[in-house]
Amino acid sequence: MDLVWIAVISGILGAAAVAYFVRSVLRESPGTPRIREISTAIQEGAMAFIGREYRTLAAVVIVVAIILGLLGAVSPDLSWNAAIAFVFGAVCSMAAGYAGMNIAVRANGRTTAAAEKSLNQGLRVSFRAGAVMGLTVVSIGIIGISILYFVWHNDPQFIVIVPAYATGASLVALFARVGGGIFTKGADAGSDLVGKVEAGIPEDDPRNAAVVADFVGDNVGDVCGMGADLFESYVESIIASMTLAAIAVGIGVVADIQTAWYLPILIAAGGIIASIIGSFMVKVGETPEMGALLGALRRGTLSSSILTAAFSFLVIFFLKADIGLFWAVLGGLVAGVLMGEATSYFTSYSFKPTREISEASTFGAGATVIRGLAVGLESCWPSVILVGFATVIAYKFGGFYGVAIAATGMLSTLGVTLATDAYGPVADNAGGISTMAGLPPEVREKTDALDSLGNTTAATGKGFAIGAAILNALGLILSYGVAAGLVSVSPNGKIVATPELSLLNAPVIVGVILGGLLPAIFVAMTMKSVGITTGMIVEEVRRQWREIPGLREGTAKAQYGRCVDICTRAALRQMLAPALMTVIAPVVVGIVLGKYALGGFLVGALGTGFIIAIMFNNAGGAWDNAKKWIEAGNLGGKGSDAHKAAVVGDTAGDPMKDTSGPSLNIMLKLMAVISLLLAPVLSRFTGIF
Amino acid sequence: MDLVWIAVISGILGAAAVAYFVRSVLRESPGTPRIREISTAIQEGAMAFIGREYRTLAAVVIVVAIILGLLGAVSPDLSWNAAIAFVFGAVCSMAAGYAGMNIAVRANGRTTAAAEKSLNQGLRVSFRAGAVMGLTVVSIGIIGISILYFVWHNDPQFIVIVPAYATGASLVALFARVGGGIFTKGADAGSDLVGKVEAGIPEDDPRNAAVVADFVGDNVGDVCGMGADLFESYVESIIASMTLAAIAVGIGVVADIQTAWYLPILIAAGGIIASIIGSFMVKVGETPEMGALLGALRRGTLSSSILTAAFSFLVIFFLKADIGLFWAVLGGLVAGVLMGEATSYFTSYSFKPTREISEASTFGAGATVIRGLAVGLESCWPSVILVGFATVIAYKFGGFYGVAIAATGMLSTLGVTLATDAYGPVADNAGGISTMAGLPPEVREKTDALDSLGNTTAATGKGFAIGAAILNALGLILSYGVAAGLVSVSPNGKIVATPELSLLNAPVIVGVILGGLLPAIFVAMTMKSVGITTGMIVEEVRRQWREIPGLREGTAKAQYGRCVDICTRAALRQMLAPALMTVIAPVVVGIVLGKYALGGFLVGALGTGFIIAIMFNNAGGAWDNAKKWIEAGNLGGKGSDAHKAAVVGDTAGDPMKDTSGPSLNIMLKLMAVISLLLAPVLSRFTGIF
Repeated sequence: MDLVWIAVISGILGAAAVAYFVRSVLRESPGTPRIREISTAIQEGAMAFIGREYRTLAAVVIVVAIILGLLGAVSPDLSWNAAIAFVFGAVCSMAAGYAGMNIAVRANGRTTAAAEKSLNQGLRVSFRAGAVMGLTVVSIGIIGISILYFVWHNDPQFIVIVPAYATGASLVALFARVGGGIFTKGADAGSDLVGKVEAGIPEDDPRNAAVVADFVGDNVGDVCGMGADLFESYVESIIASMTLAAIAVGIGVVADIQTAWYLPILIAAGGIIASIIGSFMVKVGETPEMGALLGALRRGTLSSSILTAAFSFLVIFFLKADIGLFWAVLGGLVAGVLMGEATSYFTSYSFKPTREISEASTFGAGATVIRGLAVGLESCWPSVILVGFATVIAYKFGGFYGVAIAATGMLSTLGVTLATDAYGPVADNAGGISTMAGLPPEVREKTDALDSLGNTTAATGKGFAIGAAILNALGLILSYGVAAGLVSVSPNGKIVATPELSLLNAPVIVGVILGGLLPAIFVAMTMKSVGITTGMIVEEVRRQWREIPGLREGTAKAQYGRCVDICTRAALRQMLAPALMTVIAPVVVGIVLGKYALGGFLVGALGTGFIIAIMFNNAGGAWDNAKKWIEAGNLGGKGSDAHKAAVVGDTAGDPMKDTSGPSLNIMLKLMAVISLLLAPVLSRFTGIF
Repeated sequence: MDLVWIAVISGILGAAAVAYFVRSVLRESPGTPRIREISTAIQEGAMAFIGREYRTLAAVVIVVAIILGLLGAVSPDLSWNAAIAFVFGAVCSMAAGYAGMNIAVRANGRTTAAAEKSLNQGLRVSFRAGAVMGLTVVSIGIIGISILYFVWHNDPQFIVIVPAYATGASLVALFARVGGGIFTKGADAGSDLVGKVEAGIPEDDPRNAAVVADFVGDNVGDVCGMGADLFESYVESIIASMTLAAIAVGIGVVADIQTAWYLPILIAAGGIIASIIGSFMVKVGETPEMGALLGALRRGTLSSSILTAAFSFLVIFFLKADIGLFWAVLGGLVAGVLMGEATSYFTSYSFKPTREISEASTFGAGATVIRGLAVGLESCWPSVILVGFATVIAYKFGGFYGVAIAATGMLSTLGVTLATDAYGPVADNAGGISTMAGLPPEVREKTDALDSLGNTTAATGKGFAIGAAILNALGLILSYGVAAGLVSVSPNGKIVATPELSLLNAPVIVGVILGGLLPAIFVAMTMKSVGITTGMIVEEVRRQWREIPGLREGTAKAQYGRCVDICTRAALRQMLAPALMTVIAPVVVGIVLGKYALGGFLVGALGTGFIIAIMFNNAGGAWDNAKKWIEAGNLGGKGSDAHKAAVVGDTAGDPMKDTSGPSLNIMLKLMAVISLLLAPVLSRFTGIF
């Protein structure tokens, strides 16, 4: 029996667990009529956005597929099957995002209703919704790759077809993250500015026309966008390893190509089993407190990690691969866990860095901004050193292949880590619904407790996601290097550098410097887009207050749909430019400056992208929690000058941590995987030098 | 006759011009007794700070010199003469900074007095003070290198001794920039926060105990720090070319080593003559307006650039060097000028980017911060592309040597560009003195006009300085590559890459990623230091208001010296950590991860450092001018909510553009030059991989 059937079985088990959790969520009461009404509005808004976003996406995907197909028809090095695999990858990614969002919009109201009964019930519903998303992503991922394998693994072009699948997933992920990110933060910031700040009404007040758009944003950005994002990371971590199979054989860490393909697929399969077990371990007693809740989540993720390590050892042992590869997997796993912890240290108000931002706020908003940026920049060191460390270990034991396998190891527990991450937005929405439905404040308190826990796990999850993206992008860049012939691989798999790839060769060094520019431009574009969308929302809410009599007094109903519509159009229009830049830039660099410069370009982008991603994520998270620390009654509490200063930091940090930062992860991988996909073509260009 | 005598003559001519300008400044009236009193206080504060800073520096310099001497004594590849050259470089750098500051503190009050008479008189005095600084820096630079040349050019270790001189200059520059930067921005922000914001009294009001510290800061940070900074850039641009002489001979662009040494020295000499001529061309008629003033300054710098290009052509022609090198020089010159213009586009309120920040401010401070960061990041593209372009051109025509020569070309007009930059702080101080001395508001209006003009030229100058630093660092990294044997140079000078330097070799790629971290940590440290110092100043001014009866009412005198003292101590204590990290990091990376990883490390630091430096500089500049655009009466004008939001951006941007950003330039070069200096030792380490 082909061992890939084990992966298929793990995917089916994952799907079974998903079905169980979905049934468990849907069995819950959908709540009072008012809750149902709001839920329906959110559902409709989210579906309308996704419908339009996916239509735009379909157009882009078809155009790219046609180009790939034509390239495949004329070039002997490419296969037109790549076009099919590309579309398949795109469809899988869309499905993963859609499935996650679909359960989330149904779980929101049910979490509100459950939280009316008890905190523990609220946790159960929201966490199970998160688990649906986590396990859906990994199940679709592993089954998709298995299909790819069964259809094409005897095709001599298999190694060209596989990256096409990843490119499809990556392209969809970028659009979903950028589009969803612009939507969610535009709506969020606009609603806060015009409601909380300008009119002085509470958050999620029904008189604010932008509140429904804000809820919709949580689902299309934080849930659907994140699902597509991590689906991409997941499949790419497996695919990068598979494309480096020849290297693995050459340096003798595996016996043959087949084994080198099995290894990442089976490690991932083990990770799925571990994630299912971990998901069922998240349980608390009947009278839980926060510490117990957090403990429950941690128990789930930690036991999955340990199980994954054990499964990976068994896989390596039974495949008779070099045991050194186990150290690569372990390095990836440990680095992933520690990066999550480091993020939580720098962004939680239980620790010094965030508290120092709160204290700086007593000197005014300027000081808040300076200190927040400093914390964000400073917080880069653990992640950079951990990734460096994991790379060194992996390289020592498995060369290029080892680096890719380390990324596979890091991402193999995604099923459960994503669950702990995705439950946050559900709890957040549940809180909003409870306010908007006019439920008693105790309900909001309980959902806020869940939300705050979600923020902690989300911070950890984001740190993990950045680390995974970087290690993954590194694996893809190495694959590109092999595929484009930047390094030549001798018959025994040893890698021999071509002199043109010397770091101090002008094309390479100019490539590194140019590459460093791209992440900066990318985040600048997305931040600007959020700003523009925010402005449009503010105008619209003001207009409704001006023109709808009785709205300010709460006797008339706001036109929520208008704000949803504005965000939708703004997001769709503005997501195109950064996404197209990401797709086109590596191709242009490869053709104009040549394949060596493109290698430098990708590494340069990785270098600055890594720093900007962590800085944006952690500065944003720390500002958010510095504000919450003051709101908890410290340094003058809510309404004090320090609080006002802290709010400025939080507002500035929001698009950084929720739009620009997370999109950057995908952008780095997409540039690498496109280069890998087109490597057979790009390998003919040596540039104008 | 040795052609280096031409350089000596140009240095002497520069010194003569300096003497002329000094006399011209000192001949001006030092003003009313009150002006003189304030000037004296500033002078004393600045001298006290410099005295203590230089004593700390002397200790560090001596320790490093002893280490170098010992290394030289035990290692056959180093020379203990390097220790002497190192001390010589440090002393020259200190002298350059000191000389500039010494004239600045004398010109401040005289500019105030001259501005009482007319705008044109004010410009003349302040610009001439700037010219003293610019020409002093280049004269000391060229004479220093000439001395180095005459003493050691027959020494077989000449190529090891020369970088030691640059390292000395670089180390002093880093301390001066960081120390001065912490001093000036701590005092500035503290004084503004407690005075303008908290107590609502005007800027530079004598009741504010921190005002004198603020004035002192302008001199020790903006003048002395900048002088040491650009002195370093200047000598390093010449030295990087000299150390690559063997390459130049090998690829046949010059006939022999001697010519390869002459070329950068003589281009620099030509630049000094051009700068002297340019300085004398800055003149306006008796009834000038702003446009004419700016035109006068531009005329000065532009004609110097054209003259320098012409002189360089002659030098290349008469030395019978390959005419392609002229394109390298021209590429550097043009890139430098255009980078300055790009900076001015992104940071001046005459253009769209800055105005958009002003408009965003109407949505609150959060929007100001987001838009400012976006503008800063976006503004990286022209500079990165220009540096890339200059590098490609230079490399094509002169290989590694060409790149270094391009940097020499870019910096050769420093004498006059620095003059237009350094006159700004003098005008700024003159304005402060006029308010503090209670002169009529018309005087302040005139000095404000000069100051605003200074801001425009300073922005241009900063863009230029970053570009020069990057191209320079690149030249030094290439020198390191050759000196450490990362590339092997065949007998005919062709560069052959060693396979270990492949970009996709793990040590190199890990080096790039780790290197990218350093600039982030460095700016985080310096931003934090400014924040801490600001807090101390706020406390002290509050204390004086509490404890000195009559101070608030203006009947008692503030203890200005206390604030100067606090800033001095804070700056000296906090400048050590970032400076030591810069010195130690490359050595540790080189020893632990090996010389190839160190190559990657330096390039990685260059990549992120470039982006952070431009982003910090331009975001800071744009925030400053976005505020000024509102203050000019737009979008509600001074005191409006938009203005308050814009002030937050300005406060946050201040340490970014005046402390962290400019220090980063030096940091990148210092890491490169230390690696170059220690290359003979580091070349033995291949790391733990």
